[in-house]
Amino acid sequence: MNTTENLSLNLATVRAQWDMRQAVEACLAHGITAISPWRDQVQKIGLAEAEKLVRDNGLRVTGLCRGGMFPAADAAGRKAAVEDNKRAIEEAARLHADCLVMVVGGLPAGSRDIRSVREMVAEGMRQILDDSRAAGVKLAVEPLHPMYAADRACVNTLEQALDLCELLGPDVGVAIDAYHVWWDPKLAGQIARAGAGHRIFAHHICDWLVPTRELLMDRGMMGDGVVDLKGLRRAIEQAGYHGPQEVEILSSHWGSRPGEEMLRTVIERYNSVCLP
Amino acid sequence: MNTTENLSLNLATVRAQWDMRQAVEACLAHGITAISPWRDQVQKIGLAEAEKLVRDNGLRVTGLCRGGMFPAADAAGRKAAVEDNKRAIEEAARLHADCLVMVVGGLPAGSRDIRSVREMVAEGMRQILDDSRAAGVKLAVEPLHPMYAADRACVNTLEQALDLCELLGPDVGVAIDAYHVWWDPKLAGQIARAGAGHRIFAHHICDWLVPTRELLMDRGMMGDGVVDLKGLRRAIEQAGYHGPQEVEILSSHWGSRPGEEMLRTVIERYNSVCLP
Repeated sequence: MNTTENLSLNLATVRAQWDMRQAVEACLAHGITAISPWRDQVQKIGLAEAEKLVRDNGLRVTGLCRGGMFPAADAAGRKAAVEDNKRAIEEAARLHADCLVMVVGGLPAGSRDIRSVREMVAEGMRQILDDSRAAGVKLAVEPLHPMYAADRACVNTLEQALDLCELLGPDVGVAIDAYHVWWDPKLAGQIARAGAGHRIFAHHICDWLVPTRELLMDRGMMGDGVVDLKGLRRAIEQAGYHGPQEVEILSSHWGSRPGEEMLRTVIERYNSVCLP
Repeated sequence: MNTTENLSLNLATVRAQWDMRQAVEACLAHGITAISPWRDQVQKIGLAEAEKLVRDNGLRVTGLCRGGMFPAADAAGRKAAVEDNKRAIEEAARLHADCLVMVVGGLPAGSRDIRSVREMVAEGMRQILDDSRAAGVKLAVEPLHPMYAADRACVNTLEQALDLCELLGPDVGVAIDAYHVWWDPKLAGQIARAGAGHRIFAHHICDWLVPTRELLMDRGMMGDGVVDLKGLRRAIEQAGYHGPQEVEILSSHWGSRPGEEMLRTVIERYNSVCLP
């Protein structure tokens, strides 16, 4: 008998098939009671409606995706990003999300100066900390795979993310996504460090396919790739995080399959290859 | 007036257009006197012929690509890899190459244990060190971008490569390729470390395109992407390496253009965006 305990579904995984309400209904039908929606998915049905959906069904929201995207070519752009992050904090608070997931942003068009862009990220984070703390919303910096350094997130290793967290102080931590960090030779030590600082706020899973055909929409179903998901989970639990494993599979293949088939496969693989 | 001083052409860049002899003729016509051939390109014209081509034209061989590929599912496979690396060392010696570039290899089919695969790499390197030192061939470990960790090289940061080098002792160093390392938040410090240990054996250049459409054959011409190539070169020179910048562009776009057009663009961009 397959369990769905401590399994969360990141709703980007079923973006092609369902809206937020439909996804929640499908999750509940399969016994999944934790979700992580994206802001545009919330917006589509309305924040009040999303809040009600969460409350009425006693859902755990393991994260709201996503804040971040701080770097911009000019001060006006950076200010707009900070304002948008403040709105995201409010939304995360309304949904009682475990954290607001931060995909910090990449190089503004024309920039080749990744060091200064990383400073923009730290500065942007600093400017929303009062708000996030007041709202009781934890910020989970998600180090993204280095192949996204240019266009999505210039925080690319767990070590770098934790350096940033320690600079910023309490209530800032990390979302550890198997896809982004599995390759890192320093992974084990940095997971332990994150745990020691109580900074693990989320654990995302999927798999790295061989071959990987393109950079964005070719993530694999757990078990179809090369990531040692049981081993990763073991390390994360040893570091003190026992929250849900959140399935986030951005994949044109899985986006083209019926949602029900995907969900059944997610549950089956969660049991066979993700539980330590 | 554009210079070709200290410019080397990695012959994979023109693999689609020319064989080694044709590539050398084209390079010489443009004043480029340094090359880095791949082993299959040498083999195609024959080692003796390649040696003569290098000697008769007074070419500098900035590297032979490539040794490595140590991991294998069984002992026989690993032994075969070591033997093949010993042949590569002989070839590098015959061509008086500055180094043998080591693309160390990824996960054998079915493996999800990247840690043990990394141990296979260290062990394979250890087993060829007597030969490489006897032949006077330097081994240049090339950390590959983390997106190649599964299928090409499980050494993925300069820090990790240098840890391996220090484990192995003298005559082992690194090839620093802009494409693979540009994103690394620890890059500046690790370049300085590599220089202090006299371990920079090669400097490869191309560019990271936005967007990057696929993982293998979408590298960019210098200047077309987001890498600060002047800044990288400055750091490498400050660390004590003043050897050629070696252009290695694996690209289906450039592979479809006439070789002459590509070579002219390489020289133009070397002058405009690579010289500090």
